[in-house]
Amino acid sequence: MVTAVAREATTADAARASHIDAMLLHYEVETFNTRYAAALDEQRLNDWVEMFTDDALYVVVSRENFDRGLPAGLIYCENKGMIRDRAFALKETTMFAPRYLRHLIGNLAVLGQDAHGSIKATANYVLMQVLFDRADAKLHQVGVYRDVFRRESGHLKLAERRCIYDSLLIDNAMCLPV
Amino acid sequence: MVTAVAREATTADAARASHIDAMLLHYEVETFNTRYAAALDEQRLNDWVEMFTDDALYVVVSRENFDRGLPAGLIYCENKGMIRDRAFALKETTMFAPRYLRHLIGNLAVLGQDAHGSIKATANYVLMQVLFDRADAKLHQVGVYRDVFRRESGHLKLAERRCIYDSLLIDNAMCLPV
Amino acid sequence: MVTAVAREATTADAARASHIDAMLLHYEVETFNTRYAAALDEQRLNDWVEMFTDDALYVVVSRENFDRGLPAGLIYCENKGMIRDRAFALKETTMFAPRYLRHLIGNLAVLGQDAHGSIKATANYVLMQVLFDRADAKLHQVGVYRDVFRRESGHLKLAERRCIYDSLLIDNAMCLPV
Repeated sequence: MVTAVAREATTADAARASHIDAMLLHYEVETFNTRYAAALDEQRLNDWVEMFTDDALYVVVSRENFDRGLPAGLIYCENKGMIRDRAFALKETTMFAPRYLRHLIGNLAVLGQDAHGSIKATANYVLMQVLFDRADAKLHQVGVYRDVFRRESGHLKLAERRCIYDSLLIDNAMCLPV
Repeated sequence: MVTAVAREATTADAARASHIDAMLLHYEVETFNTRYAAALDEQRLNDWVEMFTDDALYVVVSRENFDRGLPAGLIYCENKGMIRDRAFALKETTMFAPRYLRHLIGNLAVLGQDAHGSIKATANYVLMQVLFDRADAKLHQVGVYRDVFRRESGHLKLAERRCIYDSLLIDNAMCLPV
Repeated sequence: MVTAVAREATTADAARASHIDAMLLHYEVETFNTRYAAALDEQRLNDWVEMFTDDALYVVVSRENFDRGLPAGLIYCENKGMIRDRAFALKETTMFAPRYLRHLIGNLAVLGQDAHGSIKATANYVLMQVLFDRADAKLHQVGVYRDVFRRESGHLKLAERRCIYDSLLIDNAMCLPV
């Protein structure tokens, strides 16, 4: 009888420990996304590039195209070199239309971790923008990140980030990283 | 002396364990809200309906009416059958004005759990919308969820969700579930 | 051999405990921010004032001025008395232009805790507003909180909150607390 009670306690402890582990992983990914947003909002683009693995996929694609399985996107980078190029292109472009950017990332869902330590996750994002000659903040882009994270030397990096935006038409600044 | 120290350590451990439990419950409700938002954003309306208990109350009401204690709302469902009807009505309506929806749910506060396991919570929500013939995302509805959750077979379900929106006038699509 | 394994287990346990502590602190600050937003959204301004320490600094300043190190801001309060004055001034002002406010606070980053228990943190905020004579919600102010928290009788209080908003021009209602 005592053994059954003890076993039950152990099972409850194990379940609790496993919930705590899930919460820790959720917290780790959330922290990553917060640092990611800060790097873009503060235009620390080198820091942004370093958040990807060398072979990372980084894609910005419309919800319409994504739902149809069409790969064509605003941005399509197959490795970190291409991501770095995109960051530098941005640095030149933003000279012409200065603006402030502000990300809000929420609704994070960590979907699971496979045997190799790859972590699948999604999160909704809102990118707000204030142009230097305009008074008000605007919703610039709204969408969902579909991500694969990998651990390198103990730290999370993005192996895949697909930014799937809801907007159907795009203004000429929309090819900003998000 | 040693016993007092040990007792202090035990009290601190108990406080820590209780904080962790509060955080686990917060995380569980947050996860629920993320799945809820995804079901609506991805128009998986059957999944949305299944997140309520059979006797669930689901109400969408203006902040003005709620503050005055007036029950009249845009949507008033007293059980899951009525919620299901509302979901199907939506499916037909959206044919006429196709749009993308995107929820951001934040500022979650778990207010407490009673002896029967009912959990009271609130969260702010922002529902953004992109119409298919418009370029930009708009704030469609902004408000607060006032919720009561109940556990069924180990999983959280909504026994009550009151969506109290700040907007005073409403456009004709506002009777979407939120 | 056994000792090495045991030591490794202990190190892993300590790392896990330290991650949990970080998460508990993050959760505590998040909970504070949620209560802070609710106090403002529900116009409980006395409650809002009580969330600051007696010697608290509360500043609302544009990103442009903050980046240049200019202290000039929309609001500049050096202690709780000034913060209380600001709250009462608000109560009169809002009589003339009634509106609903709704905060969404996200992207919380707890940056660290010093030897005296002061906690540095940042978070992005979005303040949405619905004017009583307008149908739609608008982005009223978007920015970042740069905070220092202090513990008083076990509870967090704001010793410093700098609200750094992205918008460059401001409408006449922007001197609301945020």
